[in-house]
Amino acid sequence: MTDSGQDVRHRLVEGAADLIGRRGLRASTVRDLAKHAQTPEGSTYHYFPGGKQQLAAAAVRLNGEQVCQVVGKGLEDGPIAGLRVFVAAVRMLITSTDFRGGCPVLAVAVEGPDGADIPPALSAAAEVFASWESMFARSLEREGINEAQARQLGTLVVGAIEGAVAMCRAKQCIDPLDNVAESVETLLRTVTATAR
Amino acid sequence: MTDSGQDVRHRLVEGAADLIGRRGLRASTVRDLAKHAQTPEGSTYHYFPGGKQQLAAAAVRLNGEQVCQVVGKGLEDGPIAGLRVFVAAVRMLITSTDFRGGCPVLAVAVEGPDGADIPPALSAAAEVFASWESMFARSLEREGINEAQARQLGTLVVGAIEGAVAMCRAKQCIDPLDNVAESVETLLRTVTATAR
Repeated sequence: MTDSGQDVRHRLVEGAADLIGRRGLRASTVRDLAKHAQTPEGSTYHYFPGGKQQLAAAAVRLNGEQVCQVVGKGLEDGPIAGLRVFVAAVRMLITSTDFRGGCPVLAVAVEGPDGADIPPALSAAAEVFASWESMFARSLEREGINEAQARQLGTLVVGAIEGAVAMCRAKQCIDPLDNVAESVETLLRTVTATAR
Repeated sequence: MTDSGQDVRHRLVEGAADLIGRRGLRASTVRDLAKHAQTPEGSTYHYFPGGKQQLAAAAVRLNGEQVCQVVGKGLEDGPIAGLRVFVAAVRMLITSTDFRGGCPVLAVAVEGPDGADIPPALSAAAEVFASWESMFARSLEREGINEAQARQLGTLVVGAIEGAVAMCRAKQCIDPLDNVAESVETLLRTVTATAR
């Protein structure tokens, strides 16, 4: 059985998300990304004629959508349920890879552009962060939190978890994520109780 | 006037911290780091016979100490004063570089090791995060917060600010840092008021 085109493209994007999360984007060549996804290098240029940046932008967006899907489902039961799902997904990612796996959105975000132009992958990272933040903000608004505070807290949830990913990987232990999760959960519990 | 050895070494380490924060470690060669610091490549091997990892570990530690010094001074006036100093320093770093500059500790932390061994720069990043967290934790304990909660909140402060750095760079705007700073400040204000 041969892979369909869609399968190859999807495997390439999933593999790119994984490798970029592990090693960073600038240090990963198109060849590295294709090899990691077990696809021929030529398929990269076939599906992504714009090259590495186009592939990386797709990888960042895929990760963004996967998180939105899983966490969005959790948020149906409220902001704290959504937070727990987010934290559980991050815990799984970093522990199942022995702290080698990371967030491709974060990896792209911390690599500034070389020139004046904003590369496509960095723009994609900005969009994904915004989508994650607003998903939490909307959920907090449904609990009666005003828009401005909900937006601030949405940013805090995403920032704190992303920062914790980096700290867990540096320390090779899960404590930073657990600490951050517990602090943020306490905060959300306090503000939603006050808003009701 | 010629540079003394200590000047060259210091310039090299400062330059490495800057370039690693901008571009990441794996994508920066020893030649890139020396060139960015305007020092001869040979001086790198003279001062850092262990090569790039040894230089990067020194850069991470230098950044760690600089933050501890500045923020530690702020913390003498309490956790919120220290938070504000930390946020102001981060704001200066990213706005003065037009969102190109970043945190070298974060950059190193999000690049997992290639093999089983933990490289020196990653160990240094773990130590630096721990020193920043405990600096805030101790300050919170001085306000009457119990040790376990103070430790959790120390991790949250560092994680949230580091995450915000990445978000600001992706979005090329300072809003994420402002949002996170305000949320964390509110939280610290609430917990310290309750503890008193």
